[in-house]
Amino acid sequence: MPQSHKRIVIERLVAALGKDGLKTAPAIPDACLRDWSAERGGMPLALATPENTNQVSAVLRICHDAGVPVVPQGGRTGLAGGAVPSEGAVLLSLAAMNRIEEIDAASGLMVVQAGCVLQVLQEAAEAAGRSLQLDLGARGSAQIGGNIATNAGGNRVIRYGMARELVLGLEVVLADGTVLPMMNRMPKNNAALDLKHLFIGSEGTMGIITRAVLRLHPRVAGANAALVAISGFAEAAGLLAHAQKTLSGRVTAFELMWADYYDAVLAVTGRRPPVTRGHPVYALIEMQGADPDRERDDFQAMMEQAFEAGLIQDAAIAMSQREVDDFWALRDGVAEILPHWATTINFDVSVPLARIGDCVDDIRAALKDRFPALQFMFFGHAGDGNIHLVAGPIETVDPTGHGIESTVYDLIRSYGGSVSAEHGIGLHKKPWLSYSRSDAELDLLRHMKGLLDPKGILNPGKVI
Amino acid sequence: MPQSHKRIVIERLVAALGKDGLKTAPAIPDACLRDWSAERGGMPLALATPENTNQVSAVLRICHDAGVPVVPQGGRTGLAGGAVPSEGAVLLSLAAMNRIEEIDAASGLMVVQAGCVLQVLQEAAEAAGRSLQLDLGARGSAQIGGNIATNAGGNRVIRYGMARELVLGLEVVLADGTVLPMMNRMPKNNAALDLKHLFIGSEGTMGIITRAVLRLHPRVAGANAALVAISGFAEAAGLLAHAQKTLSGRVTAFELMWADYYDAVLAVTGRRPPVTRGHPVYALIEMQGADPDRERDDFQAMMEQAFEAGLIQDAAIAMSQREVDDFWALRDGVAEILPHWATTINFDVSVPLARIGDCVDDIRAALKDRFPALQFMFFGHAGDGNIHLVAGPIETVDPTGHGIESTVYDLIRSYGGSVSAEHGIGLHKKPWLSYSRSDAELDLLRHMKGLLDPKGILNPGKVI
Repeated sequence: MPQSHKRIVIERLVAALGKDGLKTAPAIPDACLRDWSAERGGMPLALATPENTNQVSAVLRICHDAGVPVVPQGGRTGLAGGAVPSEGAVLLSLAAMNRIEEIDAASGLMVVQAGCVLQVLQEAAEAAGRSLQLDLGARGSAQIGGNIATNAGGNRVIRYGMARELVLGLEVVLADGTVLPMMNRMPKNNAALDLKHLFIGSEGTMGIITRAVLRLHPRVAGANAALVAISGFAEAAGLLAHAQKTLSGRVTAFELMWADYYDAVLAVTGRRPPVTRGHPVYALIEMQGADPDRERDDFQAMMEQAFEAGLIQDAAIAMSQREVDDFWALRDGVAEILPHWATTINFDVSVPLARIGDCVDDIRAALKDRFPALQFMFFGHAGDGNIHLVAGPIETVDPTGHGIESTVYDLIRSYGGSVSAEHGIGLHKKPWLSYSRSDAELDLLRHMKGLLDPKGILNPGKVI
Repeated sequence: MPQSHKRIVIERLVAALGKDGLKTAPAIPDACLRDWSAERGGMPLALATPENTNQVSAVLRICHDAGVPVVPQGGRTGLAGGAVPSEGAVLLSLAAMNRIEEIDAASGLMVVQAGCVLQVLQEAAEAAGRSLQLDLGARGSAQIGGNIATNAGGNRVIRYGMARELVLGLEVVLADGTVLPMMNRMPKNNAALDLKHLFIGSEGTMGIITRAVLRLHPRVAGANAALVAISGFAEAAGLLAHAQKTLSGRVTAFELMWADYYDAVLAVTGRRPPVTRGHPVYALIEMQGADPDRERDDFQAMMEQAFEAGLIQDAAIAMSQREVDDFWALRDGVAEILPHWATTINFDVSVPLARIGDCVDDIRAALKDRFPALQFMFFGHAGDGNIHLVAGPIETVDPTGHGIESTVYDLIRSYGGSVSAEHGIGLHKKPWLSYSRSDAELDLLRHMKGLLDPKGILNPGKVI
């Protein structure tokens, strides 16, 4: 793009946003050039920080006219590179649209702007006597617009679903600046096709999410939880089915940790093992509820039956919230392991629940065979079919990581799984997208993109 | 269309389906000319009954080439006229695609063809130790393809969501015959935009659903339930919030019946009132679970607290499944009332939960004012914001029903509600669609239709 053209775009953006609403290099903060992935993008033209939907619309209109790429940014906590800049793009930060517009506790909903930080929304919902049941490690930085644009998963999907299930309504600005209001407030609305699903999980390639109506659930007071040792994956799946059935759907988390993960996290964190080592698989089972003391009987009865049925080898049951938190610290301890194994490759995949055990065994055997010096560990939200795998260090073994990726994704494909369970595609997984989507799906996706963004300005180069 | 052209289409269809797969008038059964709505369509050209996806694809390719409309039909239990024939259309019945291909109980899923009857699937899931948690009055005739195409709601949405939430994957045939496989089996799959949502709730206007992967939940053994009398809507909403919170999300149904409905159903059915008459609102609360006897303590504790808090005036708690069924017979008794009030107009609307009480009061006052001789009754799945309203007889009062409809829908619009909570738009609600969707939404819907069905052959004249 010629300099004169750039200058005109910047002048128009300043006119729309005011001087404080636009930064150009070198005033663009370094943090905006990256997200939490290892992906690196190009040098952006400018950083726009609109304060309302009209300003978002103006930015898009200007960029659409000029054919300038637009890269939306929330909290930049994505792990697939969906928010890294394209060369010459306008970065569109939603950070200034961070107002909670309304909480209707009686109807079980809140109306929020896209730039609200997830944890802020969780706390506001709690203060109003409700719970926003989306939760993930990045809660302190992630913005709800990004959570929705990536259809975020997290810790409680087994009970409350993905971000999609928590979105009642959306406001989206289309590539040409058209505002698309879909601010539905009802759990049930079958007045024609529900168009919000064109944007949930689109990673900013179909439109920019500016506001949302979120569903709130009844508030929970605390949790019962156990950390258990299990003799194999089949027994773990049996335990999950038993717990979900006997607790009548109240299980809020079922996190699996294979022995490689359990040993690594204990070694790195120095924590005392809640249950003995030496078992193939460990699970953290949690049941949140309104009255954890009252509900403990049900939880313990479930555990006793599981013991009698041979589904559990060893178990520690939390007797306080502090002990629940201690169990979660083991699961969340992955962040402490990564620096010790650097550089790692981190996978986020899913396979049908019943096939997880075999799939993990096959991946382990294949990696051991091909990369004998590689360390790896398996864990994840297995109740949803979601496995995470960390492998490293790759420097001496497979510096590009491509061999490790193809080993893993070949097996994921053969098991009918997905190369992205919850992190999205972004830049990082583009080479592997066809492993999990049919040619006809990818064709239709391209046609949809052509319809919604004919000039291809929205987050170009991401996903497809 | 000239006769010679028709003959060629029919010859090509017979070649694709065999003689048994195609019927032409007058051999088309009368039942295929109607659905459960009062809408009437035109005379179809033929009835095609393909036995597999390839045959569906062939039918669509032939009709697409010839520009012949295609009207998909499942169990024809829809209440909005979505399945009535268009003049000269090929009716595409999925009835012969009624095979359960697989039940993977361990993964919690089943793979089915679109023509399977809902109740058959429910029973098969139970036999495999799981539950398919979609349930509605038409379960004995409705086909799963139609349930998905209309995003059916029903009795347990408050706990398990609409049909959409129970669909993991779909296979769809597009207007030009392209088969679009999206047979995902995982609860989590963020490998690009999830395209199945283009078809769920599209009422056959965007593609033909041929197969589905359905999510199965843990099996339930029975229910605790109560029928309660309540002093007003605000208290009913308070009771729902209390029950959802203290039962930690286990409430499976919360059905409201206003006094007009309660009195009418008792009068028509001759049943003994479980709780005294004379209260403004009644609710049926149900909590299904794996061990209803064990769970009764929790349910009764919830009820006692509700009494103490003044949320309930009178209550009957079921002590057996037979008594649970008796409560449901009152709620389902609407079918017995309708003939006594004929001809009726039946509404399916939703408004944000906290506004239901005022909205119902306003509708009642407006109808009384404009149509003093009209009888009406309010009930519905109020836990989801969904109200049903039956008004009649209309013959002497408002024979076209249009005045009654505009009175109701004007108020629904002013409350930010939807003209269709769960029945869809079909033919019946087309005039009112703009009351619940913005111009920008309808524009995008038309563009989507143009992309997916450029010749407009799929269920023409329905929805938009």
